[in-house]
This record gives sequence, structure tokens and C-alpha cells, in this order.
Amino acid sequence: MAAIVGPQGCLSDPADTEPYVTDYRRIYHGRSPLVVMPTTTEQVSRVMAWCHAHDVPVVPQGGNTSLMGGAVPDDSGTAVVISLRKMHRVLAIDTVNDTMTVEAGVTLSAARAAADEAGRLFPLRIGSEGSCQIGGNLSTNAGGTAVLRYGNMRDLVLGIEVVLPDGRVFSSLKGLRKDNTGYDLKHLFIGAEGTLGIITGAVLKLMPQPRATAVAFVAVQSPEAAVRLLGEARALSGGAVTAFELISAPALDLVLEYLGDIPSPLPARHDWMVLIELTSGTDAETLNGTLMEILETGLGNEWVVDAAVASSLADVQQFWRIREEISDAQTRTGGSIKCDISVPVSRIAQFIERASAEVLALEPATRMVIYGHMGDGNVHFNPLRPRDRDARSFLAQWYKPVSDLVDGLAYAENGSISAEHGIGVAKRDDLSRYKSPVELELMWQVKRALDPKNLLNPGRVLPPTGDRP
Amino acid sequence: MAAIVGPQGCLSDPADTEPYVTDYRRIYHGRSPLVVMPTTTEQVSRVMAWCHAHDVPVVPQGGNTSLMGGAVPDDSGTAVVISLRKMHRVLAIDTVNDTMTVEAGVTLSAARAAADEAGRLFPLRIGSEGSCQIGGNLSTNAGGTAVLRYGNMRDLVLGIEVVLPDGRVFSSLKGLRKDNTGYDLKHLFIGAEGTLGIITGAVLKLMPQPRATAVAFVAVQSPEAAVRLLGEARALSGGAVTAFELISAPALDLVLEYLGDIPSPLPARHDWMVLIELTSGTDAETLNGTLMEILETGLGNEWVVDAAVASSLADVQQFWRIREEISDAQTRTGGSIKCDISVPVSRIAQFIERASAEVLALEPATRMVIYGHMGDGNVHFNPLRPRDRDARSFLAQWYKPVSDLVDGLAYAENGSISAEHGIGVAKRDDLSRYKSPVELELMWQVKRALDPKNLLNPGRVLPPTGDRP
Repeated sequence: MAAIVGPQGCLSDPADTEPYVTDYRRIYHGRSPLVVMPTTTEQVSRVMAWCHAHDVPVVPQGGNTSLMGGAVPDDSGTAVVISLRKMHRVLAIDTVNDTMTVEAGVTLSAARAAADEAGRLFPLRIGSEGSCQIGGNLSTNAGGTAVLRYGNMRDLVLGIEVVLPDGRVFSSLKGLRKDNTGYDLKHLFIGAEGTLGIITGAVLKLMPQPRATAVAFVAVQSPEAAVRLLGEARALSGGAVTAFELISAPALDLVLEYLGDIPSPLPARHDWMVLIELTSGTDAETLNGTLMEILETGLGNEWVVDAAVASSLADVQQFWRIREEISDAQTRTGGSIKCDISVPVSRIAQFIERASAEVLALEPATRMVIYGHMGDGNVHFNPLRPRDRDARSFLAQWYKPVSDLVDGLAYAENGSISAEHGIGVAKRDDLSRYKSPVELELMWQVKRALDPKNLLNPGRVLPPTGDRP
Repeated sequence: MAAIVGPQGCLSDPADTEPYVTDYRRIYHGRSPLVVMPTTTEQVSRVMAWCHAHDVPVVPQGGNTSLMGGAVPDDSGTAVVISLRKMHRVLAIDTVNDTMTVEAGVTLSAARAAADEAGRLFPLRIGSEGSCQIGGNLSTNAGGTAVLRYGNMRDLVLGIEVVLPDGRVFSSLKGLRKDNTGYDLKHLFIGAEGTLGIITGAVLKLMPQPRATAVAFVAVQSPEAAVRLLGEARALSGGAVTAFELISAPALDLVLEYLGDIPSPLPARHDWMVLIELTSGTDAETLNGTLMEILETGLGNEWVVDAAVASSLADVQQFWRIREEISDAQTRTGGSIKCDISVPVSRIAQFIERASAEVLALEPATRMVIYGHMGDGNVHFNPLRPRDRDARSFLAQWYKPVSDLVDGLAYAENGSISAEHGIGVAKRDDLSRYKSPVELELMWQVKRALDPKNLLNPGRVLPPTGDRP
């Protein structure tokens, strides 16, 4: 390996490899004899070809921000980790084609900054943007708070470059917006969590920067009222709704306690709130007018109880900071059961109602931290330990039964047990319950066709087949 | 077969099967012992399982509007045609989730009408909308004149139902906007032109109906000037550009001759024109203001030479009619060499210049009918016989050399030889020249994994492998 990537591209001392074999929440811990950090696609190809020839499993790793244990090796100690972190160049920006060509190891924040410098927007917006990398964003089809307007990561890419399990390189970096010449192979690798190939580069779509932004922090009568408000907002703004984020009272309580210095945007406490962001190419006055029209309709229909409209950039940042700190506030508090579910938007209110009632029936003092991307039918449904309860004992007692309960209820509403966090190893075996046998068979047909030796990120995503063909 | 679909669902008399074995331009003519018209997914599944058990090839067919011979059988007479035309129900519309569930045989115009009736927009817009079907739109990843704003068909679908080559049914009709639970298998079948499965149903995305539309017919200095104008339009409108269609002088001449009763929107003849459409959720006045701002910027920079702004719905329809009739006008005139290429938007002007020069060097009186979706980097580059030249002799002499020339130049500009029309049989063998060996191998790996007996639409899309593995 040192002959391929140079000695400075190899880590084998356990002290050095530690950050690559442990996930950032310190839940998943594996072992690896070697972490390889190639600097070019050709090096990735040669490393992979060597591993293929010697039947060595490989775990591709970006920023190592997976919540599902998808980016760290298991504890067998057999797999080499290939970290893309040294492939961090923005290769080209084309402001006429509105595309940006990057290596896989570019962090999301670096990609956003490069777009910004070119007067464009790269719209993916997730909490881990400072660490997560474009290759990982693609491999997990990342979501976040701007999906409603711009789509998931899958929708933001025109082409990718991938090193295949035998070291061959498949490249589609042309930056075409239309190309119907056979199977669109990039979609095989997007969202495959590194089990079919190692993404080494991508051509990303750039968008016009919005000329105006309007944000409101809105207390709503109920999740049902929030859904109605969303529909009205979409209709009245003609697609200008960029974010529509639900926040439950316990989620706001938690973040206000955690941040200390930030006041609630609204004077009274409310059970349910939404953060609404509109962006557009028109002037700010027109957009604010649209926002006011939406809020007035909401008030008139009694969906909206109270609202604070951001009147400055500082307000916008403060409203967003409240939303964005929910995740950290939970981590610091401890004892959170993280369920990342989605259902059709038309069923989200009833899902929240039923799932909350069932969880509270089990453990009445549980704090129902519920927040997220309501406009996508996706909420982070994260029951949090009662104030007087120890995190460890709460999780030991409830993590599994509550997760299973919530997943089961989402499934019953035609939903997904992992809207944006992926499968990794955490949810792998659950797929057997929530996917049809045909779908699991198809996944394995694809896996075997592309990676017959099962070398790439083995044991991730696909549940073991048992007796299945 | 009659036991599965009933006798009224089987056609075997050559007089009855004729429309199913000949493409609508009467270029591709095949043979088939039987056309089967199932009415349910279960029937499709049973038909397919029977064919699989008996090694009978199958050609799935929607509206039979393929331009590439992708929907009719070859002349071996061995393949059964499965027509989806009797599966034409709109199953559900959910205006909260903004989705519509349809059977594959629903025509595009019926789908658009159903959305419209529900107060929503289904945005796919192509010339054949009265005949083409949703299943075919998906199988060919249809494009058209609203891709710039809304994306290709692939971007307009949340889930599909597919009958696999052995009769198993894979269904993902949940209507979720986010679902990261393993491989996103629907993308295998979208754009695969029926070679991997038979799409029987889909959940389509619905959009808010625009509240305002602004349209202009604009004479531009050159294709290069048009590209600059497009960039400005995107920036100034913040994404409100729905269509940006280039039209060359010979294309306009042809359609004005053909239509007779319609005057040119502009008093003088110009070498290059664009049809610009903005749509938005704001009021018409604001949107017209944006359009005027774009045109003024264009005039100030001398990109725009003259412009006619639609002042009524009749104007809008007339401007669009001119654009939409170009295809028919060519068919009636005869002698058109159809090249559906795409390149990065930043290279489209130089592609047009070079390709035009090279074609005119071969045959100076050729009419350069060039039009289409400039905003996607996609133009229909269709050299038309000189006025005094017979169509048949022109095509016999030039079809192949000119197609190859144009494709080669598009490829040299990092482009695609089929932007939206697909491959079918017409361009199948060309793929060997324009795809990398790795990409062709991957396509075959996928094909063999899903359809090991090569029963589904055999001989289409994938070039024969020869000695390849």
C-alpha cells in the first residue's frame, strides 16, 4: 500500500487509526489493520485492485459522520479503511453550465463556500457540513433542511466517478443535464453507502443564489394545522418554500436550556411550532408580502396561533440556530431514542399523534422531542428520557421497544424507517421486516452482480440472506 | 394467454397486430405472433411468468411513440408484445402529499388533466402527450420543454411498480419524498427502455400550479448571446425560467410555411430566436417586470436584437404553437436528419457553430433546422434537405455520414448522442463507440443480473457484447 499511496498515506498504529474505526458518537467501534488515504482516483483504483486480488474487504470513509455505523469497519480487523479525506480539491466551476466538479473528499461546507464564491448556491444543508464530505453525502443520499425546495443529494448531482470493487473506474463527469444513452448507472452508487463502489468525484448542480429570504417562527395549533399551513404556503408562494421545519415544545425547551443566552422567538410556550423559510429570485418586499399572506391565511383558519417574522439577518440566524442546535442539545442531555422516519405528508400528523400516544403510554414522563422536515414527511421522532431518569437505564429499557414501536407505526402509515440517515449496520437487520422479499432479493442481485466477492463495506445495508437465494 | 387476460385481451391476426409492430413514423417494422393487453398488474405478472417459463421474449409497449425503434419487436416473429394500454386508471390523487398514483397506461395528457382537475400541475410537457403513456415516459426518462424548471421524468416520480423478467412484482408505491433504506431500485428501471422490467404503475409528484406565466419570443444575436441571456434570466428570476427554447431561422421558416395562417411574432427575419417562458407563484405584474428586466439587460448587452412579449393567452399559445409544430413540419417536408444531442450548456454555442459549418461544408444548401431545449444543453440538430433536393436521395446520401459527424462533434464537446430520445435499436450499436468499455460492461452486468435469460426487449439499448465478458 505504501508503494501506491506513499508512506504518509498509510496509518497502521492503533493510536492513529482510532478516529477512523470509531464513529463520532462513539457508539460503533471496529478494528482495522490499515487506513489508506489516497490522493488520486488512480491511487484508489490501484488500492482497490490490490484488495480485490487479495480478497481484502474495504470500508470507504468520508467525514465519518454516519449516524448508523455505516462508515466504520466491524471488529473482525480484516477490512482496510480507505479514507477520501486527501482528495479534497474543487476541480472546476462552470458558471454557464452551473456545475461544479469536485473530488469526493471535499467537505460540504467547502463545496458550499466554493459555490458561493462563484456567485452560485449549492443547496444541500445539513448539520455536519463542516465534517461530512461530498462522497459521503452521495453515498448516503443526504437530505437536510432544504430538500423541500432543492431535493436530496441524489437530485443535486449530474455525474459521478466511481472505483468499482475490482479497481476499474467508471466515470460520468460530463456535466450533462440530459443524457438518455442507456442505464443511468450513477443511481446505483448514490445511496448505496459504499457497498457497490467508492465514489471518488462528482459533478454537482449549482443554483442561482436567492435574491430574497423571508423567515418566520410560527406557533401552530397542531401538526395537522402545520400540514394545512404547508399546503397553503406552497400554493401561495408557487414553490418558494425552501424549509418547513416542525419543532415540538420539548425540543424547543431543550435547546433554550442548552443555549442559555437565546430567548424564545415567541412570548408564550406552545405545543407545536414551525420554522418557515421562503426564498426567491424576486425582491424582499414581494417575498415578505407572500409570507404575510401565508401567515394571515393561517391565522384566519386558526392553524396559526402566533408568529414571529424575522426582521433582520440576525433574527434569521437566531431562528435557524434554535432549529440546528436541537441535535447537539439532545446529545448533551443524553438518553434520546433517535427515530428518523418518513411517511406521506398527508399522514404525518396522524403518525405523530399515534406514535406519541403509544410512547407516552409506556413511559408517561418521556419528553417528546419531535422535529424536522415536515415538508418532506420526515420527522426526527426522538423520545427523550424523563428529567429525573438516568440516560443509560432509560435507553437500556426502552431503546429497542420504542424504536421498534415507532418504526412499526411509520411502516403502518406507508412510511420509511430511515428517511435520511440510511441503514449502515444499525438498521440492517430491520430491513428484513420492512422490505418485501422481492426487494431484498433485487438488492442482493445487484450487490452480487457488482461486488461478487462482497468486499465493499461488507455487512452493511444488506441484511444477511439466510436461506434466501 | 387468453386464460390469463381473456380472449379480448389477445390480438393475433396480423391486421390487428399491425399497429403494435410498426412504429408511428413507419420506419421500424417487426413481427409478433401475439399482442397481449393485460388490465391488471397481476395479469402482467402471470403473462411474464409464463413467458419466462417458456423462454418467450417480450416487448413492453406504451403509446408506441419511440423515435428510436425501442417499442416494437424485431422481425424474428418470436416476441410477444405486452401493451399497457388497458391499464389506464388514475388510482389516487393526494393533494396534501402532492402525489398522483397511476397505472402505466395512463396517457401523459390524461395524467396532466387529472392533476389539473385537482388544482395541481404535472409538469412533463412533450409533443406526443396525447398518445404517449406514463410507463413509456418513465422507461425512456422523457424530457421535453419544461425540464429546465422541473427536471426529466426521473425527477418527477416518487415510486414505481415493476413486473420483473420472471414475473415477480417489485412495488414501491408509497409516495415518500425521503426513503434511504437501501438501494433505490426504481432508478434501475427508469430509462431502461423496458429491458429490465415492465413498469406497471407509478406515484408521480404534483407541483403547485403557477399563478403567473410570462412568455417572450426573442431574436438574439447568436447562440452564444442566447446562452448569456439564459444565465441572466436564471439569475434575475431566481429559478423562474421554465422554458428556454432555441429556434433557428430555417426552423421558423419551415413552420410558418407549414402553418400558413400564423404570422411570425417578429417583423424581421432573424438567424436565431429563443422562446422564453417564466412561471411563478407571484402575481403576473411582478413576473412581467422580471421578464422586462431580463429583456432590457439583453438589449443593453446587445444579446437581444428584438423581442415580442406575449400580452394575452392567445399570444402565449401562438408562440408555443410555433415551437411545437417544428417537429411535424419536418415530418411533412421530409428529408430531415434527426440528431438529438446534448452538451454542457457552456459548450452549446460552439457545438452549434462547428457542427453547422461542417454540415454546410458537405452540402451547402442544407437547411439548418436547429431548435430545442437550450437551457438543458439539448438541441434537436436536424439538417434538412435543400429545397430542390429529393428527400430519399438526400437521406440515402447523408443520413449516416451526417449523423456520425454530428454525434462525433457532440461527443468531442463532452456531450451525449441521445439527450432525450433514448437508444432503442436506432442508436444501439453507436454506444460501442461513445461509451467506455467499463460502462458497457456495467450495463451488461446489470442486465444479466436482472434478466439472465435476456427476455425483456431483447436487442434494444445494449450493444451486443461480441467477445466482451
